[in-house]
Amino acid sequence: MITVGIVGGSGYTGGELLRLLSCHPEAEAVCITSRKLEGTPVGDVHTHLRGISSLKFESPTIPEIARRCDLVFTAVPHGTAMDWVPGLLDEGAKVVDLSADYRLPLEVFEKTYGMKHRAFREAVFGMPEIHPEVRGAELVANPGCYPTGAILAAAPLVKAGLAERVVFDSKSGISGAGIAPSETSHYPNLAENVVAYKLTTHRHSAEMRQELFRLSPGVKVSFTPHVVPAIRGILTTAHIFVEDEFVGDKAEILKIYQEFYRNSPFVRLVPGVPSLGAVRGSNFCDIGFEVDGSGDRIVVVSAIDNLVKGASGQAIQNMNLMMGLDEIEGLWFPGGAP
Amino acid sequence: MITVGIVGGSGYTGGELLRLLSCHPEAEAVCITSRKLEGTPVGDVHTHLRGISSLKFESPTIPEIARRCDLVFTAVPHGTAMDWVPGLLDEGAKVVDLSADYRLPLEVFEKTYGMKHRAFREAVFGMPEIHPEVRGAELVANPGCYPTGAILAAAPLVKAGLAERVVFDSKSGISGAGIAPSETSHYPNLAENVVAYKLTTHRHSAEMRQELFRLSPGVKVSFTPHVVPAIRGILTTAHIFVEDEFVGDKAEILKIYQEFYRNSPFVRLVPGVPSLGAVRGSNFCDIGFEVDGSGDRIVVVSAIDNLVKGASGQAIQNMNLMMGLDEIEGLWFPGGAP
Amino acid sequence: MITVGIVGGSGYTGGELLRLLSCHPEAEAVCITSRKLEGTPVGDVHTHLRGISSLKFESPTIPEIARRCDLVFTAVPHGTAMDWVPGLLDEGAKVVDLSADYRLPLEVFEKTYGMKHRAFREAVFGMPEIHPEVRGAELVANPGCYPTGAILAAAPLVKAGLAERVVFDSKSGISGAGIAPSETSHYPNLAENVVAYKLTTHRHSAEMRQELFRLSPGVKVSFTPHVVPAIRGILTTAHIFVEDEFVGDKAEILKIYQEFYRNSPFVRLVPGVPSLGAVRGSNFCDIGFEVDGSGDRIVVVSAIDNLVKGASGQAIQNMNLMMGLDEIEGLWFPGGAP
Amino acid sequence: MITVGIVGGSGYTGGELLRLLSCHPEAEAVCITSRKLEGTPVGDVHTHLRGISSLKFESPTIPEIARRCDLVFTAVPHGTAMDWVPGLLDEGAKVVDLSADYRLPLEVFEKTYGMKHRAFREAVFGMPEIHPEVRGAELVANPGCYPTGAILAAAPLVKAGLAERVVFDSKSGISGAGIAPSETSHYPNLAENVVAYKLTTHRHSAEMRQELFRLSPGVKVSFTPHVVPAIRGILTTAHIFVEDEFVGDKAEILKIYQEFYRNSPFVRLVPGVPSLGAVRGSNFCDIGFEVDGSGDRIVVVSAIDNLVKGASGQAIQNMNLMMGLDEIEGLWFPGGAP
Repeated sequence: MITVGIVGGSGYTGGELLRLLSCHPEAEAVCITSRKLEGTPVGDVHTHLRGISSLKFESPTIPEIARRCDLVFTAVPHGTAMDWVPGLLDEGAKVVDLSADYRLPLEVFEKTYGMKHRAFREAVFGMPEIHPEVRGAELVANPGCYPTGAILAAAPLVKAGLAERVVFDSKSGISGAGIAPSETSHYPNLAENVVAYKLTTHRHSAEMRQELFRLSPGVKVSFTPHVVPAIRGILTTAHIFVEDEFVGDKAEILKIYQEFYRNSPFVRLVPGVPSLGAVRGSNFCDIGFEVDGSGDRIVVVSAIDNLVKGASGQAIQNMNLMMGLDEIEGLWFPGGAP
Repeated sequence: MITVGIVGGSGYTGGELLRLLSCHPEAEAVCITSRKLEGTPVGDVHTHLRGISSLKFESPTIPEIARRCDLVFTAVPHGTAMDWVPGLLDEGAKVVDLSADYRLPLEVFEKTYGMKHRAFREAVFGMPEIHPEVRGAELVANPGCYPTGAILAAAPLVKAGLAERVVFDSKSGISGAGIAPSETSHYPNLAENVVAYKLTTHRHSAEMRQELFRLSPGVKVSFTPHVVPAIRGILTTAHIFVEDEFVGDKAEILKIYQEFYRNSPFVRLVPGVPSLGAVRGSNFCDIGFEVDGSGDRIVVVSAIDNLVKGASGQAIQNMNLMMGLDEIEGLWFPGGAP
Repeated sequence: MITVGIVGGSGYTGGELLRLLSCHPEAEAVCITSRKLEGTPVGDVHTHLRGISSLKFESPTIPEIARRCDLVFTAVPHGTAMDWVPGLLDEGAKVVDLSADYRLPLEVFEKTYGMKHRAFREAVFGMPEIHPEVRGAELVANPGCYPTGAILAAAPLVKAGLAERVVFDSKSGISGAGIAPSETSHYPNLAENVVAYKLTTHRHSAEMRQELFRLSPGVKVSFTPHVVPAIRGILTTAHIFVEDEFVGDKAEILKIYQEFYRNSPFVRLVPGVPSLGAVRGSNFCDIGFEVDGSGDRIVVVSAIDNLVKGASGQAIQNMNLMMGLDEIEGLWFPGGAP
Repeated sequence: MITVGIVGGSGYTGGELLRLLSCHPEAEAVCITSRKLEGTPVGDVHTHLRGISSLKFESPTIPEIARRCDLVFTAVPHGTAMDWVPGLLDEGAKVVDLSADYRLPLEVFEKTYGMKHRAFREAVFGMPEIHPEVRGAELVANPGCYPTGAILAAAPLVKAGLAERVVFDSKSGISGAGIAPSETSHYPNLAENVVAYKLTTHRHSAEMRQELFRLSPGVKVSFTPHVVPAIRGILTTAHIFVEDEFVGDKAEILKIYQEFYRNSPFVRLVPGVPSLGAVRGSNFCDIGFEVDGSGDRIVVVSAIDNLVKGASGQAIQNMNLMMGLDEIEGLWFPGGAP
């Protein structure tokens, strides 16, 4: 049994890690930290775990965590993870960091997040579908929720060299904004509304560009996020503009996607348009597309659960590969529609 | 491995049975029927099961189903189940019937549902918390969704002889109304609304009275259902009026509930008020209560997922007991909050 | 033109007063106060009023307000209104107080709200349907949102002496909790949920008892509030238990309601069950009912918009009567379904 | 008083026309037709109008309608309006057609809608902000809901010759799909979901292209619609790609918009990002934008109520101009936030 720790377990990703680990046959959560909640049973905070998990929040030292855990998920805010990750690694634990601290090169991180990095390390970008080197890695930087859905939607066409310009227009459930109440998450502000925000400046753009540039240097990438009245899920509409002559051959595009994802169990190419209900609570990314017969555009739509494939589920997928387990271990269950 | 069949699998309870069985270590769905959808992969209808279940809808005869399945869930409408259940039993299969056809005595059924019963059999009322005889039964009538939450909320106080009058005011997600679009399920009619209906005449009242009368003959029981803007879940507010002198002793009431449910793993007595998020997708029934200091009322609130503890989950709980498995097999996972 | 002031205009009731007054032919909002927002255009806070209202938040003295305004709405929290109301009255303004400070007799207020009253005055309870003395009053205490829907649902039967026990089970939109984000109003906590709270101790019970006791001393009144995933609206299910022999005569009950409300333009007796959509944004209270043929219960359902008939609309209805205008002036428009 | 008829009044746009006309000081609805509902009071169908409108659905002949009405709104499906419009015109009524039958040139209509046009007439495209010739017109084709929000968002930049490519990604409430229940409007399918559909083939694209080409021939226009869990409202995110050197000058762009809309009372240029709450129930179109500092993109967001500015409100705005009234008559009221 692999012993697992969760640093920063009071938020949604921490609760989701516990939920998923509670059904994992090869891994067990043995430690969850929160300075503020020390001593509190996790079921008092994550009420769905009442009776399922008997853990209490703790506040141990880094060496103590590393001693008790084979692998640690750091689920603290960006700027804080860097205070934990190097110590945990140095003490011998493997780490999946769910913050943004290790997703970007040093200088890109510092520019994007407007802060000095106090403890940089090289990490693998934790999207197994395009980073096979996750297998066996010591430190994996779990991707952002928006980049996960966006990159998976566009990567095959970008890698095929067909995309000139990609416009990602994403619609997210509000759980991505976290467990703390805010103006945006105030029910009367979100219900019956769609909240467009950071129209041109969301920091996740940097991850999208980094990964898509690796596949096709210079591809133009734009991104605008929205929050919709939903708890979970991100639907990304990728408007992909291609060489004029290419558009129209649906079968060929399908083949490109099938080939690209032939070894990716969690990517499902679906007929028609994906929906959030089909992936809710699961680690799947559903992808569908349509070719604009009268233009130069392919519209690809991806659907993920932002807390699973967009965060904690992908983190466990990464854990599986880092620890030599089957990629799907503990994650092979369907979404919860309706 | 127990082989399981689902008769009438195109609706929500059928999809939910498949979802739950896909994670069950001791049982496997081997057959799912639908005349209309014969030949269609289940993933085309229940899109969350795409890639998880490779079953196709079939239309086999009763003997064929019974030959292939140790146990069959009949998930067809009331009035139709009676065409399947006796044949399946006679051919040697055990049956959990999710319709109303076997929940009530013959004459009560006929009066309540306004139809002749063409094939009556004696069945066990499938609520293991109050019917231990589910263990080993051949035919179990799975309770209605409203009765499940209502009876579990009130049973301990009723059995203790304290309740004179119980008023159940239930708030349900719309999935209880099924997979077919209707006026009530039309988004503009349900969103930003609460739909009270069958204010005094809902047929589930008969189940509530039957079960609570067994515990305390003559207790007065009223029930009014509502649909709220939610997909899943039933929150039942039980206004329980008691002997004047009793009210006020919270600890004693808690003891009554703890004692009553000491062997019921899926009932969680929670501090404060239960919420639907904590049970969503799971087989738990969460119960909390408050004593009216200035009156003669105890307000008990129960929360279930109507499709799980209120239907398919409870059906599998019954299956486990009928087949000699541990009651919690395949069902011991948390809800999906947030 | 009647000049109107709003003390405490940064919240939902303040915004709603401005919205309604912007269409009132005989009254004009000339002053809206907020210490915190002094100088800010109201359209920056209540963004729907942008371009409609050119008012800015001010912070004038009581005499200055009274000098500029014929009538003042005090829309500040309970415990704060008492710092404004007597001064405004003494300076010659009429006042509609939307807080709880003047709804109850002194000693009941102090017990219910757990505070000393620093400036008590006699006020008329501002529900014109049962308090004709609103006409011409100097100080009107606008009722709470829950009491408005509850009292209107039960009053006719209670006054007729038929009701022995009334159980109010109310379902409210979250706007009743105000403009400030909270745990309860956090979208992931409210969506797909129903939040029962203060199961037996909500302070609005005192208003319900006060008004129904006036109609029938000693009638038993219980109340449990819930919040549902909706912005506006309160649907109240009144389970009314009556003398055994009475139940069953639907036409007679309808006559009682028609007679009781024959001069109440905003109460609509509807066939079937009222819905929130039909009253959304309007000052109507829709009422429907059903008689329990097999029991001793009549279930009456009322629907209001909590911010209109439950707050700001009723306040303007009171203003109309206090200022000698037609009761419906500026309020005779339909709700906004769908 | 202008007398108004509504042909096809059983749907949402018919109900909304009645709601808006009920507050119009210069126009009165005197006739509303529905063959199916003949004789039914409108309040039985549009329950919010109960007590407000005493009209009953009728089924009169075209000459009879034209005799009684100065102006007629045809709110029937596309393909049906053409059976009404020419007759009404010929009998002397002015007509605002809310269907698609008269929005496009003959051949474009026939190709886009896949049907023969049986009774073509020239009409003015009824968007007063860009078609001043609405004033005094006999026949106005009311724009589609998506084109209204999309065109208003992009028109100033397109007319200024700055836009090379416009990608409209729209998010609509479900009321745009009409009053009849469907798979898409089934609550469990829409709640907690975002439904992308007709990714590249929505027929409203033709209106967008037609109007934007008038302003700048050859500009590239793409459109993808989505339905979000909301009843009303369309938020359109317009990704506008411009000449490289231009981007960056926010003040200049603001000036372009201010100049373009200086005579358009219903367009509000707002700081920050518009939201649906601020326009709900009103005829406003709120517009905000952001310039992509690192690229060649301007993101413009518009918010409308699809049933008001996107349908019935704009129709009345057109009526006002056609009948020589002030453009804002009967429409100058705020939205209903929260």
